[in-house]
Amino acid sequence: MTRVTSVEIEDIRFPTSLTADGSDAMNKDGDYSAAYVVLRTDGLAPDGEPLAGFGLTFTIGRGNDIVAMAAREQAAQLVGMEVEEIVADLGAVYRGLTADSQIRWLGPEKGVIHLSLSAVMNAVWDLAARFAHKPLWRLLADMTPEQLVDVADLRYLSDALTREEAIGLLRAQESGKAERIAELERTGYPCYTTSAGWLGYSDEKLRRLCQEAIDAGYDHIKLKVGANLDDDIRRCGIAREVIGPDRTLMIDANQVWDVSQAIEWTNALAPFDLLWIEEPTSPDDILGHAAIKRGVAPIGVATGEHCHNRVMFKQLMQAGAIDFCQLDAGRLGSLNEIVAVLLLAAKFGVPVCPHAGGVGLCEMVQHISMLDFIAVSGSRERRITEYVDHLHEHFTDPCIVTDAAYALPSRPGYSTEMYAASVAEFRFPDGAYWAGRRAAEAAL
Amino acid sequence: MTRVTSVEIEDIRFPTSLTADGSDAMNKDGDYSAAYVVLRTDGLAPDGEPLAGFGLTFTIGRGNDIVAMAAREQAAQLVGMEVEEIVADLGAVYRGLTADSQIRWLGPEKGVIHLSLSAVMNAVWDLAARFAHKPLWRLLADMTPEQLVDVADLRYLSDALTREEAIGLLRAQESGKAERIAELERTGYPCYTTSAGWLGYSDEKLRRLCQEAIDAGYDHIKLKVGANLDDDIRRCGIAREVIGPDRTLMIDANQVWDVSQAIEWTNALAPFDLLWIEEPTSPDDILGHAAIKRGVAPIGVATGEHCHNRVMFKQLMQAGAIDFCQLDAGRLGSLNEIVAVLLLAAKFGVPVCPHAGGVGLCEMVQHISMLDFIAVSGSRERRITEYVDHLHEHFTDPCIVTDAAYALPSRPGYSTEMYAASVAEFRFPDGAYWAGRRAAEAAL
Repeated sequence: MTRVTSVEIEDIRFPTSLTADGSDAMNKDGDYSAAYVVLRTDGLAPDGEPLAGFGLTFTIGRGNDIVAMAAREQAAQLVGMEVEEIVADLGAVYRGLTADSQIRWLGPEKGVIHLSLSAVMNAVWDLAARFAHKPLWRLLADMTPEQLVDVADLRYLSDALTREEAIGLLRAQESGKAERIAELERTGYPCYTTSAGWLGYSDEKLRRLCQEAIDAGYDHIKLKVGANLDDDIRRCGIAREVIGPDRTLMIDANQVWDVSQAIEWTNALAPFDLLWIEEPTSPDDILGHAAIKRGVAPIGVATGEHCHNRVMFKQLMQAGAIDFCQLDAGRLGSLNEIVAVLLLAAKFGVPVCPHAGGVGLCEMVQHISMLDFIAVSGSRERRITEYVDHLHEHFTDPCIVTDAAYALPSRPGYSTEMYAASVAEFRFPDGAYWAGRRAAEAAL
Repeated sequence: MTRVTSVEIEDIRFPTSLTADGSDAMNKDGDYSAAYVVLRTDGLAPDGEPLAGFGLTFTIGRGNDIVAMAAREQAAQLVGMEVEEIVADLGAVYRGLTADSQIRWLGPEKGVIHLSLSAVMNAVWDLAARFAHKPLWRLLADMTPEQLVDVADLRYLSDALTREEAIGLLRAQESGKAERIAELERTGYPCYTTSAGWLGYSDEKLRRLCQEAIDAGYDHIKLKVGANLDDDIRRCGIAREVIGPDRTLMIDANQVWDVSQAIEWTNALAPFDLLWIEEPTSPDDILGHAAIKRGVAPIGVATGEHCHNRVMFKQLMQAGAIDFCQLDAGRLGSLNEIVAVLLLAAKFGVPVCPHAGGVGLCEMVQHISMLDFIAVSGSRERRITEYVDHLHEHFTDPCIVTDAAYALPSRPGYSTEMYAASVAEFRFPDGAYWAGRRAAEAAL
């Protein structure tokens, strides 16, 4: 019998604002951060290493401590639980955490308490996969349709997707699983890069990074837009010139527009042949996204990185408001909610193109896209996963991207463990980096 | 010149779980709590007292410290600001707090950071009203249409309500303001009571409290439902029997149902002649509420206490999903967002019946309902405000309810100041009550 003996919650911040990495029209100076959860146990993993679970959610700086505080409150109820009991019913663990009515009041199922739930449940899922000695995608892909539906949170979804429909969707993909796994082993899962197009980069840097992206094999490039239309026209022109007519260009406005402005601005950029406009307006505006979709077609509408739960995704799909579902592995309630959204997307025929970048999101979404292809949608058509080449060096099992494709993860877990040295250096406010920076600033 | 010199943030909790006050199908054991914000200044109010602002948001226990932490982060930027500058542009203060992109990431505009924004901005509005030596409703009612629209947050609303339309709505009510103020001075604003119907109360207590409500002059009674249909049928039967056929009965399910279950359960209770079903499902489910509204008519659908921002209310109205708008003074971003929702409701013809109860919500919503009648909708038709007779004794300027109507507040401010003795007793975890309870428990 193995027990969870303790929980460690860390506030990790990387000083990305110094180089304008991650800058966009809404978020100009983020320090990419992670509320990081470690579940320690008194047992060993099958490989003889101490068994633990590592999970995180992503934020952009101040306030990461608030998420860490909420994670501490939620994770406390896991201490003392048997690991065998946890892995036997991962749906029950999730329901236990979300049924806490006093904490639920602070959402419900949104904002800080849902970000922190994600970090905690991501650690639980990592623990479960390590206990089974499987990469997370395989732990899930090996489940029967009934088992997979049992971990999914279908509450409030029954008007769009019943349990029986969900099982039917999964059954339909049962026969081709082995073949699709083999296919992923050969070719990986296609991805696009956002690294070229942050808003804070100069035209020269944009041009150089677009060329480097092509040289690295990318066929899809995404630019941040929305601060100034003339700048956007010039930047889209540079990108299109460098990538040529046959590669794909997407744009991302990070929520800065009202509905009619989104339609006008996007149509003004239409000559640059765009696959999608991402986050054109408030992430809460389901009906607004539907109006924008009608107003900018054939350019597609993509959103999801700030879509806070499955009930919102349900409606985005019911309203025909999105062409691409960009779910976020640190904002939804981990696999319990993500599997529900994958099932909804399969039902409604909406391709899932997860949001990534930040800290550790790429490490997580590779498992999700693989699972979607293997067991849920069974398709990679019109699907492409985000990739940003930042901060992977802090992870013990970083994602591997070659020729614009994520390689199928092979090591046990959810790929979310950070090096102890990285934690020690970038822990806020007492890590070596931050202590040193404060000392340097004080000396000025 | 007067400056904000310091901010105090307190975590106040009242042990309401001991008596099942506030119990419903989702929330069984809440301790009614407030994240309480005090803005101190170096100036005096017109009455010669030290000028300060007091604001709060309401939670139900654990996690109140998380909201307090977020409020501390947000309120810090107010310290050092000139009060004259704050009151001259309350829209700018709000935009300054909401434009903080690192904190915004944790919502955006929802959950913990929006609850805490509410507490902080409620203190700012209380400060502004005390500085003007007016009750808050009058500070707002005395504004010109342009001034009132300038403080309202209309971002993301322009597809439903333009600035020009908003000004036009307010202009149309200009002429009758004085008459309506006089009317409120005579008769107050009608309210209903939820005190009778908490789920944890016995049948005998329900019967007695319904009778007491009638004796106190109430024509509207609300019951909590949703845990067990047989119990609900019996409890609705008791309530209808006591109140007779001519008074009004409402029910509240606190989000426990999926869409189809909400329709079935509500229709099963239809024989008891219900005005509305409140919170039938997830507060995020705009399209679900629209389906429920179609499925239970002529029973109305009411929701809003967990509706997290104006973008959600916009859609609830665009989709024709609600018959009654129950905005919450501790969940929306204070008057800046509440005025926007009042304007949307006036445009769409949806009556506003604010959520109250908890801690301090009744004190706040009286100002909102008065403002709505005086300056925005100009009507009390089909409008009734919630009232719960709990915890008012902790406020220095408590709401006064007689003959089932709120009296027009007359003292300067937002009625949100708590007695220092109450703060000292119920501050968590070090207040006298909680320290004493821990000592008593340790002695067992």
